[in-house]
Amino acid sequence: MGHLFLVGVGPGSADLVTPKAKHAIQASSDLVAYGLYLTLLGEICEGKMHHDRPLGKETERAQLALDLASQGKKVALISSGDIGIFAMATLVFELLDKPPPDPLNGGNGNPAWNTVEIEIIPGISAMQMAASRTGALLGHDFCAISLSDLLTPWETIAKRVRSAGEGDFVVSFYNPASRKRSWQLDQARDILLEYRPPDTPVVLGRNLARADESVRIITLQELDAKNVDMLTLVCVGSRESRCVVNNQRSWVYTPRGYLKKR
Amino acid sequence: MGHLFLVGVGPGSADLVTPKAKHAIQASSDLVAYGLYLTLLGEICEGKMHHDRPLGKETERAQLALDLASQGKKVALISSGDIGIFAMATLVFELLDKPPPDPLNGGNGNPAWNTVEIEIIPGISAMQMAASRTGALLGHDFCAISLSDLLTPWETIAKRVRSAGEGDFVVSFYNPASRKRSWQLDQARDILLEYRPPDTPVVLGRNLARADESVRIITLQELDAKNVDMLTLVCVGSRESRCVVNNQRSWVYTPRGYLKKR
Repeated sequence: MGHLFLVGVGPGSADLVTPKAKHAIQASSDLVAYGLYLTLLGEICEGKMHHDRPLGKETERAQLALDLASQGKKVALISSGDIGIFAMATLVFELLDKPPPDPLNGGNGNPAWNTVEIEIIPGISAMQMAASRTGALLGHDFCAISLSDLLTPWETIAKRVRSAGEGDFVVSFYNPASRKRSWQLDQARDILLEYRPPDTPVVLGRNLARADESVRIITLQELDAKNVDMLTLVCVGSRESRCVVNNQRSWVYTPRGYLKKR
Repeated sequence: MGHLFLVGVGPGSADLVTPKAKHAIQASSDLVAYGLYLTLLGEICEGKMHHDRPLGKETERAQLALDLASQGKKVALISSGDIGIFAMATLVFELLDKPPPDPLNGGNGNPAWNTVEIEIIPGISAMQMAASRTGALLGHDFCAISLSDLLTPWETIAKRVRSAGEGDFVVSFYNPASRKRSWQLDQARDILLEYRPPDTPVVLGRNLARADESVRIITLQELDAKNVDMLTLVCVGSRESRCVVNNQRSWVYTPRGYLKKR
């Protein structure tokens, strides 16, 4: 029986890959992943069949992984970050949920996939890395919103941003902007500015845990899609989030309120 | 100069502890942690000074870690899960943010803490483990809410749950219930039932990644504080979340909508 590991390898440095993720990759004969991640993983990927596909071909990659596993192979489908958070795992289940091929109902699922044993291995997601580099912004209630309107209507996304403002959640924006998509982040900022002060702290983390990592703490009014790209994680504090200087370094955190008791 | 590592060691099995977390513990002379976590970590904790404090004494533990580090030691303050998510990291920054001792303003911060170099190492949080055990419930927009009203007024929490309902976020409840605190989860369920169908999938994960792990998929209308305790993570699907059976096993996921494009 084939086995499909869905593996999250964290933000991009080998020392944030869990032993469980390494073992899954080692136990696999076939790796399906964007090439960059395999380079980051280094020698544990040697001796495996690599099935590279360009970024953007997510469905093809998930389908290929299921096809290989349904041939009886041990396959690892690999994402950076947590494969369960805005990543490939959910796409695998969407494929498994499709009806079998049928010209009448348009189904293009594959009954052979149903024999595959699936195991999911979580990883450190970008919001966790951004928060840990700058303090503890996720210390209290938070949410995560993808700003990509390729697959979700903008009205739905805007409503979520508004709810996040009303509920005063710390907000992490995934897929905040790309070359083709920039006004969404500015609009999301304007919605949040209706609920939080202009000096609310915001963390911009780019290429986190990689050699060219950059991390900045700015304010909500300074947030501008011009300074953000696909590789950036944007995390906006709540009304409670605060800045503190320690050892000549600036940090941001969201208090839980422990000390107010006293 | 003292060094304080704030280390998240994941849900409770050694193979989910990152190499970075292990190295930080190895580099430390003093470990401040609830005893159970040290047992889970095993031999990498040997030869270190253990400073155990009972659960509930969070402030004392954070203060002790800062005091030891400000004496020039290398100290690891250890939490299960991600130390930045509803855990100890934010408490350390709250302490650093307090004014120096002064009978007039009630400050009880310690200027010596300001010399400590701080490094935060994230870990796999309970919601990630619960989702990965059961599919991909965090595949699209989600939030995390602590139901503990010991430090946050219930009105604030209830408003957040309502915002999560309005925005149709997948919702992970941390600290969902304890022996002294049970009605909060039932009330949160009733709020979400105003926005989502009674058969919305819910994951209950208890003692995740430990020997006595239990994971169940139930429906929102079946959710009852009687079946939930401090060690349980509750994750409620959105209106989009779906169940699928694969290889005779039930899974739940939240689609990103990739396939609707076709």
